[in-house]
Amino acid sequence: MNILITGGTGFIGKQIAQKLLDLGTIQFDEQAPEQIKKITLFDAFSGEDLPQDPRIQVVTGDITDRELVSQLTQDIDVVWHLAAVVSSAAEADFDLGMNVNLYGLLNLLDSIRAHGNQPRVIFASGCAVFGGDLPEIVTDKTVVTPKSSYGMQKAVGELLVADYSRKGFIDGRVLRLPTIVVRPGKPNKAASTFFSSIIREPLKGETAVCPVQADTPVFITSPRRCVESMIQAASLSPERLGDNRIIPLPGLTVTVHEMLEALKQVAGQSAVDLVKWEEDKTIQRIVQSWPVQVEAKYAESLGFKADSNFESIIQAHIEDTKE
Amino acid sequence: MNILITGGTGFIGKQIAQKLLDLGTIQFDEQAPEQIKKITLFDAFSGEDLPQDPRIQVVTGDITDRELVSQLTQDIDVVWHLAAVVSSAAEADFDLGMNVNLYGLLNLLDSIRAHGNQPRVIFASGCAVFGGDLPEIVTDKTVVTPKSSYGMQKAVGELLVADYSRKGFIDGRVLRLPTIVVRPGKPNKAASTFFSSIIREPLKGETAVCPVQADTPVFITSPRRCVESMIQAASLSPERLGDNRIIPLPGLTVTVHEMLEALKQVAGQSAVDLVKWEEDKTIQRIVQSWPVQVEAKYAESLGFKADSNFESIIQAHIEDTKE
Repeated sequence: MNILITGGTGFIGKQIAQKLLDLGTIQFDEQAPEQIKKITLFDAFSGEDLPQDPRIQVVTGDITDRELVSQLTQDIDVVWHLAAVVSSAAEADFDLGMNVNLYGLLNLLDSIRAHGNQPRVIFASGCAVFGGDLPEIVTDKTVVTPKSSYGMQKAVGELLVADYSRKGFIDGRVLRLPTIVVRPGKPNKAASTFFSSIIREPLKGETAVCPVQADTPVFITSPRRCVESMIQAASLSPERLGDNRIIPLPGLTVTVHEMLEALKQVAGQSAVDLVKWEEDKTIQRIVQSWPVQVEAKYAESLGFKADSNFESIIQAHIEDTKE
Repeated sequence: MNILITGGTGFIGKQIAQKLLDLGTIQFDEQAPEQIKKITLFDAFSGEDLPQDPRIQVVTGDITDRELVSQLTQDIDVVWHLAAVVSSAAEADFDLGMNVNLYGLLNLLDSIRAHGNQPRVIFASGCAVFGGDLPEIVTDKTVVTPKSSYGMQKAVGELLVADYSRKGFIDGRVLRLPTIVVRPGKPNKAASTFFSSIIREPLKGETAVCPVQADTPVFITSPRRCVESMIQAASLSPERLGDNRIIPLPGLTVTVHEMLEALKQVAGQSAVDLVKWEEDKTIQRIVQSWPVQVEAKYAESLGFKADSNFESIIQAHIEDTKE
């Protein structure tokens, strides 16, 4: 198996790669497991703490580069397409967001199509496809209403991956992800980044700012569960998916208050005291426009699962980030 | 007022132009009517029977041509973007459909954005954004599920026009149109083309083939009503639309049997006898995947209306096409 991960030096890319290296094989539904021969981590950034393994190849470059992406997609079996300019950055620089999130995806899809070998392509979408007035419970049938350019680009990507699959150019699977918490490393430019900071920094004895009210709910997945879902998405046979390539994932709904209660259980009140409250109405407004209660029947019928509680997410974060 | 109509030598483009010439002015909501100074009909094809008027300019060219589209969108006040490769053609030639329906739209939007004058842009979408299993009544909140590349390209276009509007690059309005019946002229490559043929040809004393069963229902708008809705869409103030730029239009639901009953009322049994029945399972399947009952609350709240009955649509077709 020859694997390509775009955005491969980002934290989810690295974790998928590490998990694949640990597994050694990929097993497609009802097929024998196949050895993983090469994993290419392709990214605009060289990254750090990359998995050290002879099967890993790191390529730095631009996802809109036709020649390079054409080379990288030759003889490929599975692609995880994670490369993206995140929400606040795509909103601040419209052209940058369009280039990476729309034209980069199109370049990838057309390169794959030109080679004609129909690999499995897992595309990371997210709840940013929603916005504005939402029903209390968002389902597989809820109309997308993006209120950010990032959300628009992801919604467009979903439609492209579905149609390129219907046409037989790729064998695509869109995972519509909940917010990922706890992200390791440093804050990024996503409006949701503080949800991770308020857990991650106190665990290191550092302060973090919470810009929203304690009763604010959020719909999340842990990094571990995200990586499991990503690998599971590759294993599903195309027959199980048919024309229905957009898979909104299940997740866990917790309030900031509940997150901090779990932090107290794991690391004590002194950790919770490191969270400073500085309300930011813009972030509060953005966060409140996201789905909170999501019914993911299609994903559940395919075997995807949500995390069971936030305490175990914190425990896993501690395990995964210890030196 | 300086007007651009892409796909302007097509039949709806010509009819919008003729209506604007007859009106002489465009009236935006709560503003004084403004003189129409120039109407540019831009199309890949030179067309025929174009409106003869000193205010009309015809430009033939490619919607993906950056320099040309940049010239045409300078100092423009209203754009009707009708240029499109229709459903069967976009399905048969994927690259052609992507070029015109996606990259052509992007070229238009980015040209307009570069000039910075935020014209009103009316984008023609259609019920091809739907497909597969649909609820009995399709509403403004029904999730789009395109099952053709044309439908995907229109669904993507809707999202792009909405986001370019939200960003203030254009002042866009998407009209999601019912099937247009009775189309004048010749059959085109749309799967729906026979719905017009079975009325148009018998009125000329010619035979036509009906490839679906008589009880097959279809959701339609007349050309006249379509043109009225197109001009009405330009008049609406941006304040009335807010962020909600996608407007599924109301229409009339009729069966083939009811259409032919109306034809009998207008032109007698001899006209109906010119319709030959040759079932085509592919067309039957495509047509059955389209919405039949549509609840268009948003459009109705904005003042858009459906045709009242099919007989008057036939009468209008006869008036509009007499030599």
